[in-house]
Amino acid sequence: MTQTPHTPLLDRVRTPADLKALSLRELDQLAEELRAETISAVSVTGGHLGAGLGVVELTVALHAVFDAPRDKIIWDVGHQAYPHKILTGRRDRIRTLRQKGGLSGFTKRSESPYDPFGAAHSSTSISAALGFAMGRELGAEGVGDAIAVIGDGAMSAGMAYEAMNNAGHLGKRMIVILNDNEMSIAPPVGAMSAYLSRLYAGAPFQDLKAAAKGAVSLLPGPFREGAKRAKDVLKHMAVGGSLFEELNFSYVGPIDGHDMEQLMAVLRTVKARADGPVLIHTITKKGKGYAPAEDAADKGHATSKFDVVTGKQSKAKSNAPSYTSVFSGALVKEAEKDDRVVAVTAAMPDGTGLKAFMDRFADRCFDVGIAEQHAVTFSAGLAAAGMKPFCAIYSTFLQRGYDQVVHDVAIQRLPVRFAIDRAGLVGADGATHAGAFDVAYLSNLPGFTVMAAADEAELVRMVATAAAHDDGPIAFRFPRGEGVGVELPEAPEPLEIGKGRVIREGSRVAILSLGTRLAEAEKAADLLARKGIEPTLADARFAKPLDEELILRLARDHEALVTVEEGAVGGFGSHVAQLLATRGVFDKGLAFRPMCLPDIFIDQSSPEDMYRVAGLAAEDIAATVQGALGLSVMERRA
Amino acid sequence: MTQTPHTPLLDRVRTPADLKALSLRELDQLAEELRAETISAVSVTGGHLGAGLGVVELTVALHAVFDAPRDKIIWDVGHQAYPHKILTGRRDRIRTLRQKGGLSGFTKRSESPYDPFGAAHSSTSISAALGFAMGRELGAEGVGDAIAVIGDGAMSAGMAYEAMNNAGHLGKRMIVILNDNEMSIAPPVGAMSAYLSRLYAGAPFQDLKAAAKGAVSLLPGPFREGAKRAKDVLKHMAVGGSLFEELNFSYVGPIDGHDMEQLMAVLRTVKARADGPVLIHTITKKGKGYAPAEDAADKGHATSKFDVVTGKQSKAKSNAPSYTSVFSGALVKEAEKDDRVVAVTAAMPDGTGLKAFMDRFADRCFDVGIAEQHAVTFSAGLAAAGMKPFCAIYSTFLQRGYDQVVHDVAIQRLPVRFAIDRAGLVGADGATHAGAFDVAYLSNLPGFTVMAAADEAELVRMVATAAAHDDGPIAFRFPRGEGVGVELPEAPEPLEIGKGRVIREGSRVAILSLGTRLAEAEKAADLLARKGIEPTLADARFAKPLDEELILRLARDHEALVTVEEGAVGGFGSHVAQLLATRGVFDKGLAFRPMCLPDIFIDQSSPEDMYRVAGLAAEDIAATVQGALGLSVMERRA
Repeated sequence: MTQTPHTPLLDRVRTPADLKALSLRELDQLAEELRAETISAVSVTGGHLGAGLGVVELTVALHAVFDAPRDKIIWDVGHQAYPHKILTGRRDRIRTLRQKGGLSGFTKRSESPYDPFGAAHSSTSISAALGFAMGRELGAEGVGDAIAVIGDGAMSAGMAYEAMNNAGHLGKRMIVILNDNEMSIAPPVGAMSAYLSRLYAGAPFQDLKAAAKGAVSLLPGPFREGAKRAKDVLKHMAVGGSLFEELNFSYVGPIDGHDMEQLMAVLRTVKARADGPVLIHTITKKGKGYAPAEDAADKGHATSKFDVVTGKQSKAKSNAPSYTSVFSGALVKEAEKDDRVVAVTAAMPDGTGLKAFMDRFADRCFDVGIAEQHAVTFSAGLAAAGMKPFCAIYSTFLQRGYDQVVHDVAIQRLPVRFAIDRAGLVGADGATHAGAFDVAYLSNLPGFTVMAAADEAELVRMVATAAAHDDGPIAFRFPRGEGVGVELPEAPEPLEIGKGRVIREGSRVAILSLGTRLAEAEKAADLLARKGIEPTLADARFAKPLDEELILRLARDHEALVTVEEGAVGGFGSHVAQLLATRGVFDKGLAFRPMCLPDIFIDQSSPEDMYRVAGLAAEDIAATVQGALGLSVMERRA
Repeated sequence: MTQTPHTPLLDRVRTPADLKALSLRELDQLAEELRAETISAVSVTGGHLGAGLGVVELTVALHAVFDAPRDKIIWDVGHQAYPHKILTGRRDRIRTLRQKGGLSGFTKRSESPYDPFGAAHSSTSISAALGFAMGRELGAEGVGDAIAVIGDGAMSAGMAYEAMNNAGHLGKRMIVILNDNEMSIAPPVGAMSAYLSRLYAGAPFQDLKAAAKGAVSLLPGPFREGAKRAKDVLKHMAVGGSLFEELNFSYVGPIDGHDMEQLMAVLRTVKARADGPVLIHTITKKGKGYAPAEDAADKGHATSKFDVVTGKQSKAKSNAPSYTSVFSGALVKEAEKDDRVVAVTAAMPDGTGLKAFMDRFADRCFDVGIAEQHAVTFSAGLAAAGMKPFCAIYSTFLQRGYDQVVHDVAIQRLPVRFAIDRAGLVGADGATHAGAFDVAYLSNLPGFTVMAAADEAELVRMVATAAAHDDGPIAFRFPRGEGVGVELPEAPEPLEIGKGRVIREGSRVAILSLGTRLAEAEKAADLLARKGIEPTLADARFAKPLDEELILRLARDHEALVTVEEGAVGGFGSHVAQLLATRGVFDKGLAFRPMCLPDIFIDQSSPEDMYRVAGLAAEDIAATVQGALGLSVMERRA
């Protein structure tokens, strides 16, 4: 059921320039309409809701004060930018969010000139904004102010610190808006808020900065004291601005990020007067203005389609457990058997499934924050101390810790266990979240063991294998989404390292699959069987070390060998090619067809469609087999 | 000429435990002997000198107070650890530093139990120490205190911040020693130092912390005020400890890091009393106690062999300019022609050759600190603003910014130019500094252009090509060391993207080289010619996009195709294999031999020896060709 809200003011906004003429009262009304439209749109598409609702007023105020697209408004992560998209000429497509051919769930340069720098991974916005600011200083055309809007969580990443440090050093005008939405109390209200409004209204820049200092002392006690909790160190530094002022930023705030009067006053003053790096500290409430989001544990962070009135989400019925939950359960079992098993996550206990581990073994689970570099080397330190660390990071985010994987883990041959979720294509999150490169970037590291689970039972075995493996680093990858519904082993035996398995024996052609494309390979084999071709089908299990014996046998006994993997070139198929080439197998002729992800970034769509685009569906595998045999046959006849 | 210093006390030290019985006066004497021995050793081997000399007293005090190897002393970067090596059972091998089969120039787990966590890349020590500390808390055996010793430069990396943040949150006992050796004034001396000594001697822990506050006010004016310079923001935060205390560390200092009495008093108190994370701020002088190092611009950071008395270094005579200097000159020329050309370095203006650019175009060159993540995304921001950023980062350090390369550069198709120095094997710096993976981890990114220079003239052409290339990201790699002495083009034309060149036409076998192994491939061709084999030889120039026409022609017209590259599997050869396989070239039979770096981390040695170990010398290429032809011939006869 789609409710279309009544939005008379919003209906008149074609571009952000239309906001310039609106009064404060009208801007307030526009914000309410924008909030309603955002809720309505996400109720249809699903997606990130809470973050966007928290910045509705900020979005309106930014566009009312600054001049996008000349001024560059850069939303960190980008999942809070749905209201921004609605205001910047994309309202007509807002109900296509995260769908094939539709709007991206993040900001995206190719989508709109109002998205000057795309995002999806966190903590990049300050670096990007500084690039624009320094470009402007050097005369780049069409570049005005550079404004990064970044959450308090994202600010905890080392990259944000590096960027702040550099921006402070360079000392040029740029604006960072710290969107602080995880304060343990509600935003300042009543007397406090009114005081701040009076304070900020029309204040000259220097007074604004001075005012901020006074404002802190007015904060309610829990606000001040809550910051003493270790987890809130950053907030403690933020309030009052000591950290940022040390970094050479002018600190302004805190501001009630839902009070249009405060926002407009502060942004206008900053626009008029800033002559160096400025940090504006806004306090907002995630999910603001929509009770089902405000009341949810995750503040409506990510949601399926839902009913606007009740907030009830429509969940797709699932037949099998998700790979994430299977990993989660398997790891808890290993931890029960061995108290050296510990787990590390970079701010994703829910996404990685480590929440269950954390609940069960609180002192053995480490959420290190958005800090993948540290997560990897911290895990290496734990391994060096004799523990068995499972470092659970999505494929795409492990890229953030790549040097640490090479330098601290691989070169030292430390037995860190990498649990790599979201390997392969990921659906609605699109190209930025695809796990395309892990097999390639891990398998060429000496001493690494790299596994990919073909189904959820295999995943359980690989968790056991990783727990038992003490001879160097080991990784296992598995995809987003549900398993295939196979029974899980109760007492999984560790796999023999570097050994694959033959699924069915055939002739003429062998299909060697790595990972969950095995199901499609089986379908392909069935399709082929109907045409009289009975392929041998094997599951490699290991991208490294390769099962050389199996691979060489498959090559020897068949006219054609097709490898299938859900990863970029340079990975499994490339390692197989290297083996076959150096052993002289190609000298004699072999119709070798390594199937992998194509050389494109694949935009968001349904997983099925993405596999079709990638050419990794059963039909594609069957066609490749036929092509390989056809060519081979022709050659043999010639 | 080797001078062996007189070291009666040091001669009696077999293990660090021997230090426990020494008096303060004897520890002082030991430090002097250790300094002399360090100077003597490096005069013979060359290597990092200044950093080690700066921590001689700290090294002695740490080993006198703590109980390594049970207590884990982790030296960040590790190039300051020569004195530590001398004290920990490696004195007899100290004159083999950085040589084949000798001691590593960094700390290394496999070398000694006194090196609990190896290093070479910066800023990893706090993460590693925290891993040990949490392992200890969870009952890991044989783990006592965890102590990270980290320089002020390394502390500027985001990773260090992530680790401090996490350590503060966890709140368990661990020790970070901030070795602050870039203060713009000399270490506190005279009255100040004496005051600090009295202050620290025997003070209880709480008094120690309080004393630190008072000490700041006693610092000489320039010390306090110098910190206001933007570049020294971190120092400003450091003195007095506000940053660290915000992060939940107890701050102790500053301490004169060359005053044994202060060091011993503070370390003993911290050892006895610390019950959470402690940061000890020591101020030291790089190159301390050796005039030629103290007086050098780089404080004797890295040196060739030298004469101990005069400090005069013996420089090897070079016949050709280094690749770094050729890049440097070529970039300056491009910048003269186009004022959109800007340059970015992560704290290595000298190493990358950007110093010349910086001197010439100060406002267009950005040294962002040890901050590769930021460096890459900042470059992406500059590109988005319409500039032409050259991001100059060594191959091995670019791993630190890999996610940013993927997410901020490649996915957005932004024309960032990556100048990748130290690609391939690097000699004395060993495995941690090898640039083995860049071709693999860049070439599978959609839309990337990846080049490798075969000689210094090609490098000049590639700089021009990168400057002219606006269609997405582009990278060019080149090795450490000198070019081959060819003439440089005065007015280089951009290369045609994706086109290689044939060096000589032959028959039966084609050698296709990427990068500077071309010279060895030519030698191999000469060797083969004497045996009656005249290979075709080509320079691929591009790992991506591949010159498909050239490669398919080489495959079609020859019995064998050998690719040669100085990089790990997954790179150029793998992309060629993918092309040949998907085009069905192997169906008919082709003796394809992709030669790349072997699946091992290669320890330090001479470059020549490393190439022999890698199997990438001319003889290896010739042997591979012969093997390919031999097999092929046998098969054809069969």
